[in-house]
Amino acid sequence: MYRTHHCGELRIEDCGQKVKLAGWIQRIRDLGGMTFIDLRDRYGISQLVFNMETKSDLCSKARAAGREFVIQISGSVVERSNKNQQMPTGDIEIDVDELIILNKAETPPFTIEEISDGGDELRMKYRYLDLRRSPLQKNIILRHKIGIEIRKYLSDLDFLEIETPFLIKSTPEGARDFIVPSRLNSNEFYALPQSPQTYKQLLMVSGFDKYFQIVRCFRDEDLRADRQPEFTQIDCEMSFVEQEDILNTFEGLTRHLLKEIKGIECEEFIRMPYSEAMAKYGSDKPDLRFDMPLHNISKISKGKGFKVFDDAEEIIALSVPDAAEWSRKQIDALTEWVKRPQIGASGLIWMKFEKDGTMKSSVDKFFSEEDKKEWIDACGSNEGDMILILAGNEKQVLNAAGELRLEMGTRLNLRDPKKYAPLWVVDFPLLEWNEDEQRFFAMHHPFTSPRKEDMSKLKSAPGDVRANAYDLVINGVEIGGGSIRIHDREIQMQMFEALGFTPEEAEAQFGFLLGAFKYGAPPHGGIAFGFDRFTAIMAGQNNIRDFIAFPKNNNGRDTMSDAPSAVSSKQLDELLIKIIPSQE
Amino acid sequence: MYRTHHCGELRIEDCGQKVKLAGWIQRIRDLGGMTFIDLRDRYGISQLVFNMETKSDLCSKARAAGREFVIQISGSVVERSNKNQQMPTGDIEIDVDELIILNKAETPPFTIEEISDGGDELRMKYRYLDLRRSPLQKNIILRHKIGIEIRKYLSDLDFLEIETPFLIKSTPEGARDFIVPSRLNSNEFYALPQSPQTYKQLLMVSGFDKYFQIVRCFRDEDLRADRQPEFTQIDCEMSFVEQEDILNTFEGLTRHLLKEIKGIECEEFIRMPYSEAMAKYGSDKPDLRFDMPLHNISKISKGKGFKVFDDAEEIIALSVPDAAEWSRKQIDALTEWVKRPQIGASGLIWMKFEKDGTMKSSVDKFFSEEDKKEWIDACGSNEGDMILILAGNEKQVLNAAGELRLEMGTRLNLRDPKKYAPLWVVDFPLLEWNEDEQRFFAMHHPFTSPRKEDMSKLKSAPGDVRANAYDLVINGVEIGGGSIRIHDREIQMQMFEALGFTPEEAEAQFGFLLGAFKYGAPPHGGIAFGFDRFTAIMAGQNNIRDFIAFPKNNNGRDTMSDAPSAVSSKQLDELLIKIIPSQE
Repeated sequence: MYRTHHCGELRIEDCGQKVKLAGWIQRIRDLGGMTFIDLRDRYGISQLVFNMETKSDLCSKARAAGREFVIQISGSVVERSNKNQQMPTGDIEIDVDELIILNKAETPPFTIEEISDGGDELRMKYRYLDLRRSPLQKNIILRHKIGIEIRKYLSDLDFLEIETPFLIKSTPEGARDFIVPSRLNSNEFYALPQSPQTYKQLLMVSGFDKYFQIVRCFRDEDLRADRQPEFTQIDCEMSFVEQEDILNTFEGLTRHLLKEIKGIECEEFIRMPYSEAMAKYGSDKPDLRFDMPLHNISKISKGKGFKVFDDAEEIIALSVPDAAEWSRKQIDALTEWVKRPQIGASGLIWMKFEKDGTMKSSVDKFFSEEDKKEWIDACGSNEGDMILILAGNEKQVLNAAGELRLEMGTRLNLRDPKKYAPLWVVDFPLLEWNEDEQRFFAMHHPFTSPRKEDMSKLKSAPGDVRANAYDLVINGVEIGGGSIRIHDREIQMQMFEALGFTPEEAEAQFGFLLGAFKYGAPPHGGIAFGFDRFTAIMAGQNNIRDFIAFPKNNNGRDTMSDAPSAVSSKQLDELLIKIIPSQE
Repeated sequence: MYRTHHCGELRIEDCGQKVKLAGWIQRIRDLGGMTFIDLRDRYGISQLVFNMETKSDLCSKARAAGREFVIQISGSVVERSNKNQQMPTGDIEIDVDELIILNKAETPPFTIEEISDGGDELRMKYRYLDLRRSPLQKNIILRHKIGIEIRKYLSDLDFLEIETPFLIKSTPEGARDFIVPSRLNSNEFYALPQSPQTYKQLLMVSGFDKYFQIVRCFRDEDLRADRQPEFTQIDCEMSFVEQEDILNTFEGLTRHLLKEIKGIECEEFIRMPYSEAMAKYGSDKPDLRFDMPLHNISKISKGKGFKVFDDAEEIIALSVPDAAEWSRKQIDALTEWVKRPQIGASGLIWMKFEKDGTMKSSVDKFFSEEDKKEWIDACGSNEGDMILILAGNEKQVLNAAGELRLEMGTRLNLRDPKKYAPLWVVDFPLLEWNEDEQRFFAMHHPFTSPRKEDMSKLKSAPGDVRANAYDLVINGVEIGGGSIRIHDREIQMQMFEALGFTPEEAEAQFGFLLGAFKYGAPPHGGIAFGFDRFTAIMAGQNNIRDFIAFPKNNNGRDTMSDAPSAVSSKQLDELLIKIIPSQE
C-alpha cells in the first residue's frame, strides 16, 4: 500500500498517528537544522519535516530531492509550532521516519504554481504539467461535479442517457463536417457528428420519450479564440411536450446546478422575445446582470438638421449612470473604441446631464434644451448621467449599441462574475436570409417548427415567421438552445421548400428521418447546452480552453502530442486515398 | 399539456380520475358494440375503451385509426370487468371522452411485438421501429441504468470523469486507426482513439489520481459478428496503487452492479493465474458456471502403442457427467463437431465408465483395464460418466479441449444465463511471439509492467516474463482487462527494445508520453471494460448489437442512414485528398 491518507485530510485530531503519504514535492525549504517539504496531491498539501540532528541520513536524502519528485513517506502526525491558518492541514506536519523516492523529475519548464511563469504555448506543449496547477485541477474537478449532477438530475426525471453513433453520414447543410474514409466500403466516408440531432429525433420516433446524452460533437470550422474543433454538448430531447414543458424542465436543471454547485438560489427565469432582446439590449443574448437598456430615439431626434441623424435608419441611445463627470479624453477614447471594425460605429454622440441639471452635448448646435429634455425623458436619465447616442442602419446600430452597453457595463464594474442572471430568449425568427447564397437558411436548424399562428406567412413573408425556438442565456453568454421540432411530414416538406431544397435533395439528405416520420412520429422538442461553456460560466470564467483537459490550439493542433500528423502511405493505400501536396 | 399520466402507471386506486394519455396504438380490437385500443408508451400499455352505443362518432374515429398511430386521449379511469393479471395496468381501462390523432402511421414493415416477424436486415434498416419493441427498449434502459450506477459508484470513491480528445495522433502499434483528414493542417491526419490509453496515463502524471470515463473507442478492423467499428469503454486509471488495489476496487464495482441491477450477491472473485486457466479450462476466459476441468493425461497415456497419442505433444481429457449413456450416433456427431475447422481437432477418443463399473472405449485394443482405471483416477470420474480425450500439439489441443468443454456445458444446460461466475485471470504473459512479423508483441499493450521477479528474463527469455496484467471474466466472456503500467522511463525503454523498437521509433510514436515520464510519473495502473459487452452479460445475453441503439452491420454500414457514403468533390478538394477509384 502506497498511502494511508491523502495530502489534504490530516488534522490536529490525527496527531500521534502513524501515516503513509505519497505525492509530488511542491517545495523544499532547507533551514539548516530542519528541512521542510510541502507534499502535494490532488487533495491538498501536507508539510513534512526532517530533522538534521536526529535523522541526518534521511534529512540529507530529502535535501537531495527536487521539485516535482514523486515520493512516498512514513511518519507520525505532530502538531506544528508555527501553524498556518491558510491551509486545511496547517495545524499539523509529518515527522518523517522513512522516505522512498518513487520517481525523479527534471526541473519542469515552468513553475507549477497558482500563477505559472510559463507562456501559453509552453504550457500547451506540456499540458500534463499545466494540469498539475491548482486552478486547472479545480476546473476539471468542477466539470466532473457538474456532469455527475446533470446526470443525476435528469435520470431522476426519467431521462435516459442513450449513446448515438460517431461514425455517421455526411450532410452538406450546416457547418463543415469532419469526414472519415471507410476502408471496408471503398471510396465512401463517414462523417463525425456536429450534433446527434437526427438520432435524437429518431429516438423520439422510437418512443424513448426523454433522452439526454453528454456527448462530443465536431465542427470543422475556421477556429476562433473560443472555439474548439471538438466540443461537448449536453443534448436533450422530449416527446409529448410543448415549449413551456421544455423551458420548465431545463430551467429546473439550471437552478438545481446553480444551487448545488454555487449555492445560489435564482428567481424564475425571465422569458424575453427575441425582438425585445434585440430592441432593448442590441443582442439575442443580453447580459442582465445590469440594466442600462437601449432606447430608440429616432422619432424625437430626426428633422433637427443634424445630417448624421437625419440620414440614419435608427438612432439608439443609452444612459450611463454617473458618467457626466467623464473627461473629454475619456470620451474620445470611447469614441475610438466604438469606431473599431468589430463594433463598426461611425461615431459617438454624447450628452451630459450634469449634477446641477444643465445639459451639455457634442451636438448642441442642432438640438435645443427642449430636444435634450426629450432625450432625458426617453432614457429615464438622472442628474449626473451621460447619454451616449449611435446612429446608422438598424441591424448594425443595434449591434454596436449592444456592444457599447456591454463595454460600459465592464468599465463600470457592473458585470460581477459572482452574479448569475439567466433568462430565456424566445420567439426567434425561423429563417435567416443569406446574402451570399441568395436564399433563406434555418436560423436554428431545418427541423425547427414554425409558430402555428405564423404558418400562413411561410410562403408570403418567410422572414417574418417566428419559430418555436429558445435560447438559455446567462450573463450575456448563450448556454443552450433548442426548439420544438416539426413532427409532421407535410410541414417538414414545406420547410425544406422554404430553404430552397427540391424534394429530391431533401430525400437524399434526410430521407431516413422523413421516412421515420411516416410511421408515427410523436410531437417532440429538445435543447442542447454547450458543456464546456456551461462549466466555464459556473466558474465565473470565459475561456473554455481552461475547462477542457486536452484542448486544441487555434489552429486545431494538439501541440503536446503533435496531432494532426502525417500518416504512412500504407494507411492511405488501404483507404484508397491520395493526398494532393499542399502548395504552401 | 399532452398527458397527465404515462401508459404504465394507472391502477385500481385511480378509478374515477379524469386523465390524459398519449402514445402509440399497439392494437385495436373491434368487438361490435365496443372497441378496445391498447395504447403504448415507454412505460407500459393502457387499455382504452370506446362504446359504439353511447359515443358512436368517437368510436368510429377509433376504429378508423391504425397500428402505430400516435394519439392523445382524455377520459376516466374505470375498473375492468375482465381483469388482466399479466399487466400492471390490467385492473383498469380508460373510458375515452376525447380522441386526438397526433400523427398517422403507415403500416410498419414488420410487427412491433415482443418477437417480430421482420428479418435482421429489415429491422436494421428501420432501426427506429425495431427500437420500439419491448426487448430492445429494455436493453437500452438497462444500459442507461448501468451507466448511472457506474458513475455514481466511482464518483463516490473520488474518481473523476475526465473527457479525453477524440481527434488524436495516429500510432501504428496496435490495431488499425480510423483517420480524419485535417483541413487546417494540410496533408495531415488525426486518428480516432482506439482507447484513451496514453491520455489517461498523462492524467496520472498530472496528479488526477483516480480517473474514469465512459467513452467511445474506434477500431478499423475487419468485422466479426460480435465486433463494432465503434464501441464504448469504461476506462479507468489510478495512481499510487498496486495490482490488488485495482482488483479490489473494480471487484467492488462489479459486485455492486450485480447486486443493484440483478439482485445477486457474489462471493469474493477467484484470482486464477493465466497458466492455470489455460491448463484447467483451455482458455484465458474460463466459464466457471460449471466445473468439468481438463486433465492432462499425457504421461499415463503414452507408450501404449497408440500412435495418435504417442505422436502427440499433449493428451487432454475431460470427464462428462452422466454421458456414458450416449449413443454411437451422438458420439459420432460430437466427433464431427470437434473436427470443424474452428475447433481443429483431428479426432475424438472416448471412454465410457458405465453405471455397472465396466469400461468401454474407442481404443480398447491399445489400453488395458488398468490404463483406463488410471484415466478414471486422473479425471475423478464417477460411474455413468464419459471421458473425452483429445491429442495434438499443446496450444491447439488445449484450445480444442476448452471449446469442447464449453460445448458440453451448453449441451448439458450447465451454462445458466441467470448465474454469474466472475473471476480474475492474472499473471498474463508480457509478450506474445508473432510468427508473421518474427517479433514479440505486447500481449496487453506496450505500457504494461513486467513482474519484478521476472525482469531479469526480459532479455534472456522474453516469452517467459509475466506481466502485472489481469482480466475480469464473467461466464466465459472477457469483460475487462488492465495492468499496472510502467512508470519508469528506463524500464519503458527496455520494453520498447524487447518489442523491437529503436529509441528513435519509440520517440516518434510515444515521445510525449516518454517526455511526461521525465517530470515525475507516479506508480499507476488501470483497467478498461467493454461497456456494450458488460451490459449484454448483465442481461444474460451475448449479442452486443442488441444493446447499442444504432449499431453498424458486419460490413461497418449503418443501413438506416446509409453511412458511409460518397462525399462531394468540394469536400475532398478542401481537404486536399483524392480518392483512388476502387477496382471492384
